[in-house]
Amino acid sequence: MAANTFGEIFRVTTFGESHGKGIGLIIDGCPAGVRIEENFIQAELDRRKPGQSKIVTQRKEEENFIIQSGTLNGVSTGTPISIFIPNTDQKSKDYNHIQNIFRPSHADYTYQTKYGIRDVAGGGRSSARETAARVAAGAIAKLILQDVGVKITAYVSQVGHIRLQHLYDQHTETIEDNIVRCPDPVIAQQMIDFIMEVKKSGDTVGGMVTCIITGCPPGLGAPVFDKLHADLGKAMLSINAVKGFEYGSGFESVRMKGSEHNDSFVNVDGKIVTETNHSGGIQGGISNGMPINFNVAFKPVATIVQSQDTVDAQGNAAVADGKGRHDPCVVPRAVPIVEAMAALVLVDHLLRNKSVRV
Amino acid sequence: MAANTFGEIFRVTTFGESHGKGIGLIIDGCPAGVRIEENFIQAELDRRKPGQSKIVTQRKEEENFIIQSGTLNGVSTGTPISIFIPNTDQKSKDYNHIQNIFRPSHADYTYQTKYGIRDVAGGGRSSARETAARVAAGAIAKLILQDVGVKITAYVSQVGHIRLQHLYDQHTETIEDNIVRCPDPVIAQQMIDFIMEVKKSGDTVGGMVTCIITGCPPGLGAPVFDKLHADLGKAMLSINAVKGFEYGSGFESVRMKGSEHNDSFVNVDGKIVTETNHSGGIQGGISNGMPINFNVAFKPVATIVQSQDTVDAQGNAAVADGKGRHDPCVVPRAVPIVEAMAALVLVDHLLRNKSVRV
Amino acid sequence: MAANTFGEIFRVTTFGESHGKGIGLIIDGCPAGVRIEENFIQAELDRRKPGQSKIVTQRKEEENFIIQSGTLNGVSTGTPISIFIPNTDQKSKDYNHIQNIFRPSHADYTYQTKYGIRDVAGGGRSSARETAARVAAGAIAKLILQDVGVKITAYVSQVGHIRLQHLYDQHTETIEDNIVRCPDPVIAQQMIDFIMEVKKSGDTVGGMVTCIITGCPPGLGAPVFDKLHADLGKAMLSINAVKGFEYGSGFESVRMKGSEHNDSFVNVDGKIVTETNHSGGIQGGISNGMPINFNVAFKPVATIVQSQDTVDAQGNAAVADGKGRHDPCVVPRAVPIVEAMAALVLVDHLLRNKSVRV
Amino acid sequence: MAANTFGEIFRVTTFGESHGKGIGLIIDGCPAGVRIEENFIQAELDRRKPGQSKIVTQRKEEENFIIQSGTLNGVSTGTPISIFIPNTDQKSKDYNHIQNIFRPSHADYTYQTKYGIRDVAGGGRSSARETAARVAAGAIAKLILQDVGVKITAYVSQVGHIRLQHLYDQHTETIEDNIVRCPDPVIAQQMIDFIMEVKKSGDTVGGMVTCIITGCPPGLGAPVFDKLHADLGKAMLSINAVKGFEYGSGFESVRMKGSEHNDSFVNVDGKIVTETNHSGGIQGGISNGMPINFNVAFKPVATIVQSQDTVDAQGNAAVADGKGRHDPCVVPRAVPIVEAMAALVLVDHLLRNKSVRV
Repeated sequence: MAANTFGEIFRVTTFGESHGKGIGLIIDGCPAGVRIEENFIQAELDRRKPGQSKIVTQRKEEENFIIQSGTLNGVSTGTPISIFIPNTDQKSKDYNHIQNIFRPSHADYTYQTKYGIRDVAGGGRSSARETAARVAAGAIAKLILQDVGVKITAYVSQVGHIRLQHLYDQHTETIEDNIVRCPDPVIAQQMIDFIMEVKKSGDTVGGMVTCIITGCPPGLGAPVFDKLHADLGKAMLSINAVKGFEYGSGFESVRMKGSEHNDSFVNVDGKIVTETNHSGGIQGGISNGMPINFNVAFKPVATIVQSQDTVDAQGNAAVADGKGRHDPCVVPRAVPIVEAMAALVLVDHLLRNKSVRV
Repeated sequence: MAANTFGEIFRVTTFGESHGKGIGLIIDGCPAGVRIEENFIQAELDRRKPGQSKIVTQRKEEENFIIQSGTLNGVSTGTPISIFIPNTDQKSKDYNHIQNIFRPSHADYTYQTKYGIRDVAGGGRSSARETAARVAAGAIAKLILQDVGVKITAYVSQVGHIRLQHLYDQHTETIEDNIVRCPDPVIAQQMIDFIMEVKKSGDTVGGMVTCIITGCPPGLGAPVFDKLHADLGKAMLSINAVKGFEYGSGFESVRMKGSEHNDSFVNVDGKIVTETNHSGGIQGGISNGMPINFNVAFKPVATIVQSQDTVDAQGNAAVADGKGRHDPCVVPRAVPIVEAMAALVLVDHLLRNKSVRV
Repeated sequence: MAANTFGEIFRVTTFGESHGKGIGLIIDGCPAGVRIEENFIQAELDRRKPGQSKIVTQRKEEENFIIQSGTLNGVSTGTPISIFIPNTDQKSKDYNHIQNIFRPSHADYTYQTKYGIRDVAGGGRSSARETAARVAAGAIAKLILQDVGVKITAYVSQVGHIRLQHLYDQHTETIEDNIVRCPDPVIAQQMIDFIMEVKKSGDTVGGMVTCIITGCPPGLGAPVFDKLHADLGKAMLSINAVKGFEYGSGFESVRMKGSEHNDSFVNVDGKIVTETNHSGGIQGGISNGMPINFNVAFKPVATIVQSQDTVDAQGNAAVADGKGRHDPCVVPRAVPIVEAMAALVLVDHLLRNKSVRV
Repeated sequence: MAANTFGEIFRVTTFGESHGKGIGLIIDGCPAGVRIEENFIQAELDRRKPGQSKIVTQRKEEENFIIQSGTLNGVSTGTPISIFIPNTDQKSKDYNHIQNIFRPSHADYTYQTKYGIRDVAGGGRSSARETAARVAAGAIAKLILQDVGVKITAYVSQVGHIRLQHLYDQHTETIEDNIVRCPDPVIAQQMIDFIMEVKKSGDTVGGMVTCIITGCPPGLGAPVFDKLHADLGKAMLSINAVKGFEYGSGFESVRMKGSEHNDSFVNVDGKIVTETNHSGGIQGGISNGMPINFNVAFKPVATIVQSQDTVDAQGNAAVADGKGRHDPCVVPRAVPIVEAMAALVLVDHLLRNKSVRV
């Protein structure tokens, strides 16, 4: 029961709490012969790390990782790759104010109810810090995918009411040019201003991340339960704060007619493509070679700098005081996490596909 | 690699093609001592079967199942439960018109590309008929869940542009009173009229199914990859024609502030509940005892009674002629499928939860 | 938790009880394009079936199978292959004499204790009849292995005190020439005579099956938990009545020195082989290209035609009366089962090996 | 594909090479509320560690472990428990003499053939050092099993030709009184003298470990593929240098009659037991409450201080020079490894058994 493991062949198992010794992961099933570029892994971690701009949490965390096994002279050997990311920010904090309190819309109540015990410090296992392990694993997945021409690009498409038009039709070169990671510089500035405004009010706001995958070969995915979009959906929904997933025409397809929704096949210079892409690059659960695109909805972060009514472990009325540094909006840092989880799904199905024919 | 298996402890494996000898499933991991009520299983299958009303496909298919193993005097023995549903509608048809054609937005092209071979008759494995096996398995899951007070109710909340308001706040007793399975009789009639209109034009239309789960004990789900909503999302996205999934506040949460989104805990007669339920009954990936609710978006059925441009297996331009009987809108029959998949997720996590504490 | 499933990629799930409607299996993960030769599957089933000679149970069971899915014109399509073997011998029997009794060295007591319910008729799921499903699945595995030159041959190497010398050095062409399936005709006759003698006395006797696999490519298996011999060992130990497994030098290696046990590598016409084969074709858990060989020990069948002291479900002293037809020695019919399980292990690792390098 | 993961619910994943930064493991699925006694874990590691006596390798390795996650104040929280054991003996050595050589009966050739790359230093992943991670995980499994009264005891029953009689009938209190871990002090001294003699000659010798498990509740195991003894067998065969496994009557059962082999049930003070225990505590793959007992055969260590003929990576004749420190006989240090793997199997089936009835 792989509660902390993701994937069938390229299997990633993560561990670690927010304020323990550190977090980390094991990749079991990484093929031999992959060049593990540490600079690239660090660069991906840096895209996710706190304190990178004024619109994210100001917590200062260095995320320096150590590869503990599975490589030889920078090349994977086919044995498990273990990566450890020490917690640098371990100074014992005062968590007494929440020790006995169930914070609204946090995992405090459910963890306590399920396990009868919970690690209060920094949210323990429920901390978004866990996603750093996903990003490190995803970086290695990306290195494998690059070699077969698969490119995964995510960006912020909505913050609160501020939304990009034509979600799937964007110039993605400019994404990293601004701190909110929105390809449209004008919309990006509006998003940044709005996040700063929300932050000043001690509040938080939701957002949406859009992801586009190009160069995916046809044939990835499985017909029934492991449809490619079903695995992508689970991957995204497993990210903290995600409330929804749609691919291709998504929820908009509810209003459409079959005659307008169907994607006609055409032969362009010997390559079979579709004229439209309402299918989002996936038909019958299997990639068809067209761009794969999907949207991921993120709720506003639960930690706000306001006092909220709640109850304590004994069920008595209590007040949760919002202190400390937090993200006013999670999506700018969620972009590399969405890419990482997409990479894990694709590399796993890429490897699975190797045994589909004799 | 469980491409055709779903679940970790309560494991369902399905098989079968649309026009082969039949379809079926094995449940491995069903606890011993469950009363397997065949009437209930048949009733669930009948909710899904073709020809049940004027707004669904007029194909006449009896879905009589045979339990081949795993029970003794109507009680599960703990050994694998195998169920077979023979195909009654096997008269050899003429599929020459699509033998060599890739129908738009069907699985023809992707199956052929992945496997190098495909079963054309009735779409083979990609046929929605496969979902009958899910419904049969889900019925057994429901029998287990009933005994712990879990109730799963799905209904049609949108067809094309016709949409219910207050999706999660409905009187569900009336759902089965109309053929479209919408709890509001007035909206239901509008949906039925619209579907008939679409049908006359030889077209199809999308729709949305909403699901509410009450009585779910707190503690089901896992903190990281196997979040309860992530597994529910994968389950729904694995159903044919599904394009999107959202739970609780879903995509609407993108526009919300943390201060309005957070669900405050209150003690009501010694039971800890939340005042609002934007969390959709799940916090940190684990059920909190509140109603679990989610929406599932279905695209319009790809089979339309119109000629469409496409290509053949050789890449030559071709025309796909839409013949035969099909569903103008899939959601009325999708309701029991959504319930079944939700039941499989919940019963699996219910059993998984038994080993979470010493 | 794959209690009734075997394999990681080529996944076989079996179901069915001895006196229910039938037994069967699903193969999920069989590659597309495999020619499924029904005659070969039937021939393998016939090697296992009861009543084939005077030294096995005289029960008359036809084992006619039906392929219910997963093939098109005799070729696998990559979708689940479901095979059903109806029980022909279903006439309701009188099991009252054991209904409430725990037969010595049967699964009666443990099933009842574990599940609180058990299917008494013919032993239910614990019946050796379940192995017919393994043989059918193994036949398909063999068809895949044949095409890559892997040949799996098992034979009877010991019955009671009568034992072949040079277990791994035999002319295997003659195995099927005698009903006990021993390659040495003289020893074979001694075994047959001894089994007939045991049978007359209403008793049973143990035996040993030896298996040799030639043509296995180097590189199959995994370094740590999924060592090739560990998976072979589990496969064999999962067969009814098996008490022991050894490969290569096996238990004899306990007495040996490293200097005599080590297999020196030599280059023979450009192919690296070992001079001796104490390794049994597997080093570090991975096949090295030399013949893989192992022995499987079977205990005497528990069903004897003698009255035995035991207890009933209430713990009262009782007598178990041995009635009915049974195998005086299981090994002649175990030969194809051993081959089938070996084939399942090898085909699974063959497919797993496809994703081990980029 | 859990090549480096063991278990279904209590899942242990190991990583690390002999001369890398260290080795370690993650336990995913450890129940919450287990008191993790670090002293006990260290004590178990010390039983396995090199240099503990004159009859094992004189390599000096401290095996100090760090628990990196999953506990709070010494109690498991239900989240993944990660343990790291740094390699202290990392001084860069000269491995040029084997860099390009395939040592006889080592994993050099098979790893190179499978992966196209291998970590030569200390054998990399094939080093017995990996078993330290198993011992650490097994120690935690033992802590859980202790609380339900399960006791696992292994000892050395044979070294070369020197063998204990009545393998399963021993006074186990004295096992740790001598460095070879044999319960009979006289036989123990003979074994020690023989191992010293073998060591002086630069050679190695095989041995056998016997394991007895008492207090195991009835009902653990599964009827078909996951028979308790099949999982124990795989666990043992996955340990380096193991060549055979037998339980209960084992290979001796081949010579026995059913009438002498069957274990009669008797009621002793209201408890159902068997008069004999040829079943080795397991019937139909499920524990029956009697002591579980089995033997594990270990081959002689491949590393000897002698020159051996072999080939290099180019297939040229070469000589492998045996240098360095090694174990003349592996069984004294294998005792805690056998116990650890048995503990992993039992705790996993103990947890699996919790969901077997509604």
